[in-house]
Amino acid sequence: MVIPPLIEHKRDGKSLTPVQWAALIRDYAAGKVPDYQMSALLMAVFFRGLEPTELAALTDAMIDSGDRLRFEGHPVPVADKHSTGGVGDKVSLLLAPMVASCGVAVPMMSGRGLGHTGGTLDKLESIPGFRTDLTLREARAQIERLGCAMLGQTPEIAPADKRLYALRDVTGTVESIPLIAASIMSKKLAEGLGGLVLDVKTGSGAFLTDTARAIELARTMIGLGEARGCPTVALLTAMDRPLGRACGNALEVEEAIAGLRGGGPADLMAVTYALGTEMLVLVGAARSRAEARQRLEEAVASGRALQTFARVIEAQGGDPAVVEDPGVLPQAQAVEVYRAERAGVVAAVEPRRIGRAIVELGGGRSTIDDVVDPTVGFVITVKPGDPVREGEPIASVFARDEAGVALGLNALQEAVTVGETGRLTPLVSHRITSRGVEQLGEAR
Amino acid sequence: MVIPPLIEHKRDGKSLTPVQWAALIRDYAAGKVPDYQMSALLMAVFFRGLEPTELAALTDAMIDSGDRLRFEGHPVPVADKHSTGGVGDKVSLLLAPMVASCGVAVPMMSGRGLGHTGGTLDKLESIPGFRTDLTLREARAQIERLGCAMLGQTPEIAPADKRLYALRDVTGTVESIPLIAASIMSKKLAEGLGGLVLDVKTGSGAFLTDTARAIELARTMIGLGEARGCPTVALLTAMDRPLGRACGNALEVEEAIAGLRGGGPADLMAVTYALGTEMLVLVGAARSRAEARQRLEEAVASGRALQTFARVIEAQGGDPAVVEDPGVLPQAQAVEVYRAERAGVVAAVEPRRIGRAIVELGGGRSTIDDVVDPTVGFVITVKPGDPVREGEPIASVFARDEAGVALGLNALQEAVTVGETGRLTPLVSHRITSRGVEQLGEAR
Repeated sequence: MVIPPLIEHKRDGKSLTPVQWAALIRDYAAGKVPDYQMSALLMAVFFRGLEPTELAALTDAMIDSGDRLRFEGHPVPVADKHSTGGVGDKVSLLLAPMVASCGVAVPMMSGRGLGHTGGTLDKLESIPGFRTDLTLREARAQIERLGCAMLGQTPEIAPADKRLYALRDVTGTVESIPLIAASIMSKKLAEGLGGLVLDVKTGSGAFLTDTARAIELARTMIGLGEARGCPTVALLTAMDRPLGRACGNALEVEEAIAGLRGGGPADLMAVTYALGTEMLVLVGAARSRAEARQRLEEAVASGRALQTFARVIEAQGGDPAVVEDPGVLPQAQAVEVYRAERAGVVAAVEPRRIGRAIVELGGGRSTIDDVVDPTVGFVITVKPGDPVREGEPIASVFARDEAGVALGLNALQEAVTVGETGRLTPLVSHRITSRGVEQLGEAR
Repeated sequence: MVIPPLIEHKRDGKSLTPVQWAALIRDYAAGKVPDYQMSALLMAVFFRGLEPTELAALTDAMIDSGDRLRFEGHPVPVADKHSTGGVGDKVSLLLAPMVASCGVAVPMMSGRGLGHTGGTLDKLESIPGFRTDLTLREARAQIERLGCAMLGQTPEIAPADKRLYALRDVTGTVESIPLIAASIMSKKLAEGLGGLVLDVKTGSGAFLTDTARAIELARTMIGLGEARGCPTVALLTAMDRPLGRACGNALEVEEAIAGLRGGGPADLMAVTYALGTEMLVLVGAARSRAEARQRLEEAVASGRALQTFARVIEAQGGDPAVVEDPGVLPQAQAVEVYRAERAGVVAAVEPRRIGRAIVELGGGRSTIDDVVDPTVGFVITVKPGDPVREGEPIASVFARDEAGVALGLNALQEAVTVGETGRLTPLVSHRITSRGVEQLGEAR
């Protein structure tokens, strides 16, 4: 295969054929196309975009580079959720057991922290003993038994995407809507789903801060899913402030468990219920959104969702006592309260600053080999628009030592601004389906 | 040095600092920046261009990656010519000895065939024994003795450019005006010149077919040269038909020698004299263009230019008898005349088709390791606008065997079209200096 003419073709704004994309990805996965040609092509795609036929061919080629989870003949429907990533986003930890408790199988395949955002795998691994490196066979068996598995991208799933993603990460070609869409959807569509819900974050703490670009990404992913027989719906949710109160791995597990016990923060629960409702309706496990919502609330109220989470933890090597006693989780050595410096109204809680501070505290990665400290992070109890009194405790820092505490307090000072006015943007702002974009504008 | 933010910066249309460019090229030449990051950056440059300060920094960094020819204290001025490449362009073979015979030293550093275009080194090597791989020390000594050396890019000259060029060739990043300009000028400016003339080809057989883009390239290179104290002038010359009659390595050497003996095709001689005139005036070896032209004509008429060429050939290991007896050159095994298929006027002689056919006949390279057959090629005796009779001999094919002859005749059939009308575009259409663009419009 002669690569330079293909690069020039794309560079000059023309389309490659599906056969060319298939051969390119197959040969790249086999090590026959050098990285320096692929990175030049990816940069040309960054500038020129991909035609729908090209995007479809690229996604299919990445799926076909590996194996799939197969659920043919499985007695219950299968659904999953994907989030484009944010700060304090522990929705997967609640959602998977809640939906599984309503009779829908959930092969929750998640990622690790990236940049300023947290990752579900890192959060789960703060539970002592919990292993996320299930094989496809183990995941399949656990899903049949418990309705749910929570795992990382296995080597069998879309290996071409894994290689491409690593290349994009170091060549300035991450922020391309078709490349993001192909990467996410190749992994999700390899899960053999009957329905997929996308949580596309918008606002200053999201990777795509702009609402129009977030909607374009959502529509692109929905198009890919629907064309492959996987009903797909997206919700645009606010990431101009952290979701929930806890930010940091073990702290978020604790908050997720509180949520499964019926005591989670309102915004976290609202997003979780909204996404769960879509999942249940998509695969036909509920006839209406009202029914879906009711069944999810019942799963929490009855304790079944919490029990499912405990069983998943136990099955994956973790200590299930954590769902009764958060003290099982590793605890930070140094904790300090942060108080409002003046009276007023909270104007902003900057998620990017909070996320970066977690990395600085040791709770995230700067390089792929960094070991994550599960104990560090923040609990922030105010949202934009909340009135505060001078000296009122509005957050806590969890750190390894006093130096970490100082760093965390400084980050809070920068992230949380108090002024005369503040406004909470809609939490779930848009619902996007293959039929169009629906503006919701629900505030909390 | 952390590369991804630099790539993203360029990708987003911002400029890198001169210090960043210098570090990038230094680290790339040292193997510390991987090819896959450099190729992504080059593609971003393809789309975003380079600011003048960036282009200057890139060019300087490539010069500084190697050594220079140094002519401080040299008793005569030093000048060179660069052509952007075409079909039948054997100007360097005549120009170097002609200009050297007028008392200007010429360190003619040339390239090999690229794509459909021929290369001066390949042409020279068709002279039995001729070696082009002089070291800088050998070249310098020969220039002091004979006023002229004809050599390839030595490993000492701009090694970073050599590596970058090889990468661009396989990553679809060749056709970028700033990258072309930086590549050409980094090599030429390392020659220690007092003046440089650029032959920028335009028309269907040129790399930049469009006149506006050719002018932009010329102005970019002139800006780089002048800013580094090297007076630089460019002529735009026609490459919508081959230059001269002979196309193919040994055939072109034969035609060049005929030119040095006073019997070259009119268009070849016109371009050679035009470029030579500029060179002499640029370095002050003639007070006027008329005087420069007269001195060059004298160098040919007196036989001094031919004698200089013979001495250069001898000094570089070749058989100098070739200047008296073209039979010294290797001869094609199979020769066949091509006749006009109908009466009419020549509408086109497509240089790209002719150049491709030479490669197919074995006279050029498809890969860097191909061995070039010096004997093959074409002699085409008509130009667009010439009237022809049916059956009139208008070209000859020179090939290895009858299959080659058939291939060559077929190429001529496609390249040479005869119709009702035809028009010869101006041979030297524009003269470009740091002061501006002058349209010339001279026809032959």
